[in-house]
Amino acid sequence: MSHNSFGHLFRVTTFGESHGPALGCVVDGCPSRLPLEAAEIQQFLDLRRPGQSRFTTQRQEPDAVKILSGVMTDETGAQLTTGTPIALLIENTDQRSKDYGEIKDSYRPGHADYVYDVKYGIRDYRGGGRSSARETAARVAAGAVARKVIPGVMLRAAMIQVGPHKIDRSRWDWDEVSRNSLFCPDAQAAALWAEYLDDIRKKGSSVGAVLEVVAEGVPAGWGAPVYGKLDADLAAALMSINAVKGVEIGDGFGVAELTGEDNADEMRAGNQGPHFLANHAGGILGGISTGQPIVARFAVKPTSSILTPRLSVDRHGAEVELRTKGRHDPCVGVRAAPIAEAMMACVLADHFLRHRGQQGEGFSWPFAR
Amino acid sequence: MSHNSFGHLFRVTTFGESHGPALGCVVDGCPSRLPLEAAEIQQFLDLRRPGQSRFTTQRQEPDAVKILSGVMTDETGAQLTTGTPIALLIENTDQRSKDYGEIKDSYRPGHADYVYDVKYGIRDYRGGGRSSARETAARVAAGAVARKVIPGVMLRAAMIQVGPHKIDRSRWDWDEVSRNSLFCPDAQAAALWAEYLDDIRKKGSSVGAVLEVVAEGVPAGWGAPVYGKLDADLAAALMSINAVKGVEIGDGFGVAELTGEDNADEMRAGNQGPHFLANHAGGILGGISTGQPIVARFAVKPTSSILTPRLSVDRHGAEVELRTKGRHDPCVGVRAAPIAEAMMACVLADHFLRHRGQQGEGFSWPFAR
Amino acid sequence: MSHNSFGHLFRVTTFGESHGPALGCVVDGCPSRLPLEAAEIQQFLDLRRPGQSRFTTQRQEPDAVKILSGVMTDETGAQLTTGTPIALLIENTDQRSKDYGEIKDSYRPGHADYVYDVKYGIRDYRGGGRSSARETAARVAAGAVARKVIPGVMLRAAMIQVGPHKIDRSRWDWDEVSRNSLFCPDAQAAALWAEYLDDIRKKGSSVGAVLEVVAEGVPAGWGAPVYGKLDADLAAALMSINAVKGVEIGDGFGVAELTGEDNADEMRAGNQGPHFLANHAGGILGGISTGQPIVARFAVKPTSSILTPRLSVDRHGAEVELRTKGRHDPCVGVRAAPIAEAMMACVLADHFLRHRGQQGEGFSWPFAR
Amino acid sequence: MSHNSFGHLFRVTTFGESHGPALGCVVDGCPSRLPLEAAEIQQFLDLRRPGQSRFTTQRQEPDAVKILSGVMTDETGAQLTTGTPIALLIENTDQRSKDYGEIKDSYRPGHADYVYDVKYGIRDYRGGGRSSARETAARVAAGAVARKVIPGVMLRAAMIQVGPHKIDRSRWDWDEVSRNSLFCPDAQAAALWAEYLDDIRKKGSSVGAVLEVVAEGVPAGWGAPVYGKLDADLAAALMSINAVKGVEIGDGFGVAELTGEDNADEMRAGNQGPHFLANHAGGILGGISTGQPIVARFAVKPTSSILTPRLSVDRHGAEVELRTKGRHDPCVGVRAAPIAEAMMACVLADHFLRHRGQQGEGFSWPFAR
Repeated sequence: MSHNSFGHLFRVTTFGESHGPALGCVVDGCPSRLPLEAAEIQQFLDLRRPGQSRFTTQRQEPDAVKILSGVMTDETGAQLTTGTPIALLIENTDQRSKDYGEIKDSYRPGHADYVYDVKYGIRDYRGGGRSSARETAARVAAGAVARKVIPGVMLRAAMIQVGPHKIDRSRWDWDEVSRNSLFCPDAQAAALWAEYLDDIRKKGSSVGAVLEVVAEGVPAGWGAPVYGKLDADLAAALMSINAVKGVEIGDGFGVAELTGEDNADEMRAGNQGPHFLANHAGGILGGISTGQPIVARFAVKPTSSILTPRLSVDRHGAEVELRTKGRHDPCVGVRAAPIAEAMMACVLADHFLRHRGQQGEGFSWPFAR
Repeated sequence: MSHNSFGHLFRVTTFGESHGPALGCVVDGCPSRLPLEAAEIQQFLDLRRPGQSRFTTQRQEPDAVKILSGVMTDETGAQLTTGTPIALLIENTDQRSKDYGEIKDSYRPGHADYVYDVKYGIRDYRGGGRSSARETAARVAAGAVARKVIPGVMLRAAMIQVGPHKIDRSRWDWDEVSRNSLFCPDAQAAALWAEYLDDIRKKGSSVGAVLEVVAEGVPAGWGAPVYGKLDADLAAALMSINAVKGVEIGDGFGVAELTGEDNADEMRAGNQGPHFLANHAGGILGGISTGQPIVARFAVKPTSSILTPRLSVDRHGAEVELRTKGRHDPCVGVRAAPIAEAMMACVLADHFLRHRGQQGEGFSWPFAR
Repeated sequence: MSHNSFGHLFRVTTFGESHGPALGCVVDGCPSRLPLEAAEIQQFLDLRRPGQSRFTTQRQEPDAVKILSGVMTDETGAQLTTGTPIALLIENTDQRSKDYGEIKDSYRPGHADYVYDVKYGIRDYRGGGRSSARETAARVAAGAVARKVIPGVMLRAAMIQVGPHKIDRSRWDWDEVSRNSLFCPDAQAAALWAEYLDDIRKKGSSVGAVLEVVAEGVPAGWGAPVYGKLDADLAAALMSINAVKGVEIGDGFGVAELTGEDNADEMRAGNQGPHFLANHAGGILGGISTGQPIVARFAVKPTSSILTPRLSVDRHGAEVELRTKGRHDPCVGVRAAPIAEAMMACVLADHFLRHRGQQGEGFSWPFAR
Repeated sequence: MSHNSFGHLFRVTTFGESHGPALGCVVDGCPSRLPLEAAEIQQFLDLRRPGQSRFTTQRQEPDAVKILSGVMTDETGAQLTTGTPIALLIENTDQRSKDYGEIKDSYRPGHADYVYDVKYGIRDYRGGGRSSARETAARVAAGAVARKVIPGVMLRAAMIQVGPHKIDRSRWDWDEVSRNSLFCPDAQAAALWAEYLDDIRKKGSSVGAVLEVVAEGVPAGWGAPVYGKLDADLAAALMSINAVKGVEIGDGFGVAELTGEDNADEMRAGNQGPHFLANHAGGILGGISTGQPIVARFAVKPTSSILTPRLSVDRHGAEVELRTKGRHDPCVGVRAAPIAEAMMACVLADHFLRHRGQQGEGFSWPFAR
């Protein structure tokens, strides 16, 4: 059972609420002797950190991570993992003592307020409690550790649609992603989105988004049929991110319109072994990596925290109208790219270790891999 | 670790290859004293069974299920579950001794042939071995047991798109689903699809599809944040079905174009407790059921077994051209409806037991549920 | 959750009741390309099989095992594992239609009858149902597969005490174990035990026993602190065997009387790396194998099926006197040696795969191992 | 996989090294609305805390616990669990900067030094790192939470043997346990042990011990055959405690000398349902609780940290002689009682939740329970 854990050999357990003393995670199963500094984790947290542009919540949190266990400095002065659990702690500093009066007792539509109260009979109303997107800081921290386990894999994510506005894939430029504050690989789309989101923000509204995350350098053979499939694990990992409502691999929902002729990625031989002529499969067949880039997309819903009043009820059963005051994101998808990379890193690290543990002995594969 | 298992309290382990002696599953954790007859399981297997229309493979398998353990007849003559593992066995009868010469050594594009060989260094080429859709018979059998655990839940699935042809949702009629052989809730679309698929079949081609699966009667409160989320588990369960490339909950990828005003399902009070005015969320918020119908959709790729030759390589690294002879499905989505219902039944049965085990004590929820 | 499963990377799920149609197991996670024939599994089942001497139950079961999945014959004619789940089936043939009248409604003291009825509200009274020692046939079958995963490890078990009669360890001879029907490594003790057990059998009584199981050839480094410890997993595995009430590793309960000077196994250098001068630890320190033989012992209680009437109650709450008629074992420990070997094989196979998956990269250990 | 986690529905993950910044645990799956204050956890930590008598290590650690997440203060001012993960943190304060020169490179016999280096290629030599008994502070903290889940269960542990000196069970007085610093239920034995241990301490030696832990108030029906057995889980939990080498339930190894007549606990009817006339089974039959007290015993080896030099090797393969300087326990069993209670509390809380989730529906048991 793993309500707050994911992964098997590389296993992450997170804890913490939005306005509690701290949040963090325990990373269990990380191999030993990998160099790991807090600063390396911090750089990924800084990418996810709110308050960096006008498109994200203005909450100011340093999100400074501490490594509490699982590392040790060797004679050379390098800090290395020891094979024991790595506990990472992020203290909450911006717990402003505001008046939660209204949402304390009322259920914000579209949020998890109502279901938490039904399930648990108690609800941490301060900033959404456990259901807050602040929990994803712990994921990003864990993902930074996971990257150390799979150094040959390059992980990148980009936002590819905001509201009705999609990028033009012919203009895709990965370098562009870090040049704008919207993780957009298409410079023209980024400019358009900025205007569009400014408008959304001024109206106190919000809008959804689609993101794409890609892993390059994963060799063929990771994943395990038929319920430990790489794509099944990725689907769960991405769907578990706050506000995600859809996940697809490769051509995704587009496969419905394809014929078998189009969809089957053909193969040719080569000096470095077989290669594929297309990647409709998104790098996964039968739940196992093909050696091609692993491509996943996911949809993020608009945040339900908006200025327009919405109909709802309170915990006493009375009808109310609610509008969300204070700082909020016009598009929560903006901060989802580092989170998606982290989730994919964790899934791949886990499957790498599983594959290493279980692969068949005593055969030699004829092709270079 | 659960390569071939899924679920936690209600846990299913499947085994078996397409052309081995038998396939089946072990269902562990089913509560005791539930009436369970092989005939009840059989009716669901019969829905999935191939060879029933011209739109599915002509392989003739009775798919007769035997209950090997976990049940007992009481004094009244009723066969009841005993709380011990329920083993279900389906013998393979149609293992025609055909010549697998060509595909024995060559990798069919779009299939899992290549990755199995890379991963395991050996591959059961007979009918796809473990990667064959025959494995889903075991899922359907397990799902029939799961339904017994959640008798108040109604599970239904329908195909809503075949190739480029979508249904008209205004004509949705659940009764229609069992009247046509395409699990289509729209009579007009069903007629169109039949013609379209006849054409596809005659050309020896194949096409993808989208299906929708709905669970009604799930009370609010099932599911567990933040990695044991109901939607994360559903996403993994549906993505694990052969040929599935995308999964979405509620409005799914459509949320990208919604504003927060549209997307937040408003609530009103009522005699039976709070209710929602819309269901964009597809019955799940924060990973927990809301009490509304749970709505999921998934995309099924076209089978890669087609008559048109495709480029590939063989296991010795030589380039080949392959075409698939023999019986095959023009649209594997046609048989996916009973499988999707079964997967959702298993996920819900598991979450029901988990919720019962973990819910908070000592509080009384003010509303009827 | 794993009511009927154990292990993680090498994972076994068993099913079946004493008098149902069949029992068996699914072995998931076995690496591919290991030669595996049913006959190899059968030889271990034959060792456990009842009815082979006057000291075991006279139930006549061939316990013939079938491999239903997970293997394939390659070009050379060798049957190899494929990396997919291996399902093993043993049909129950000796389900004699006897009158269960008395024990059907009454709880045999010392058996699990009462607690099954309390827990499940229904109980398979035929031969003990799921709580019968027949379930251990599935363990022995799984253990035969596990042995293939760790070919360099030699597993042996012996009975070392029957009732008050212990062996003389100075006479320990492993070859003796297969020469007598009591798995006794001390020929003199074996002769004494035979007389003693004849007497017990004639009186319709029963007696307990202690067994020792030893694994040689396990390299240092298997196991994982602090809850996946090799000794913790072994303790659970052995305690899960029917009738076992105690487990110890190395000096076990004897450590209470040792001083730190005596108990610490000293080390010396050598050409093949460090070695130990003693093995009080039983081959495990800190939950990790030391490279020395792994030594475990466990106590088996006398079967509660005896001819002397015992006081009990029936399911209606009435007081009764019960005596067990029919075939039974004077000492169930006699058949426990193959079961203990199988459990240790499964635990070691699992830890071998886990260790291979998780060991640190990029360091070279200075000693040969 | 759960190297550093245990339990399923009530699941504990611990982290931290002896001389790192902090240690702690995450308790996942605790039901909501249970009152929980740090002070309640602290009282159990204080019982385990070193430095309280001359029989335990003189390391001075306040072991002050902080609750980082999973609780919330309600309107009445009560702090309640919320159903989300409860993170507990204990900072290490007494990390004296001593010279580890000798043990830094040498393997202390009887400790886990050698195997950690073999397994991980790196070893936290400061105070034993992860293999230090300091990790058990996290267990005790988790156990304090577990007790809240099973308020009707009384958990008590006592030391019953030190070196060759056993208690006289006829003098057993639970009240005595808290009156002496040796957790001894026999006042006369306590006095004798104090003298004996003073002598051991002065010699710089150490000695082993046996402890007994008892849970009263557990109803019949907890536990799950055949690998999720209550006794199998208890065996693993107790064996996972540092220095434990043997575990037994009920009569344990004593069953070897019993006959079936003696060992079968007879039953009689009564107003409150059936009851047993003896408890040789230690409250568990077939892996399921009987309603009688659950009785377990375990053996703790003498610590290997002693003043007498022992032969060993260093990491470069050279032979060395080692003696342990500084503060150490003459009998680590002295501090094991609170740890054993905590482990049993966690196992029982887990099985309680599992039982509640899985018990059969629709039957009414005829007896009061």
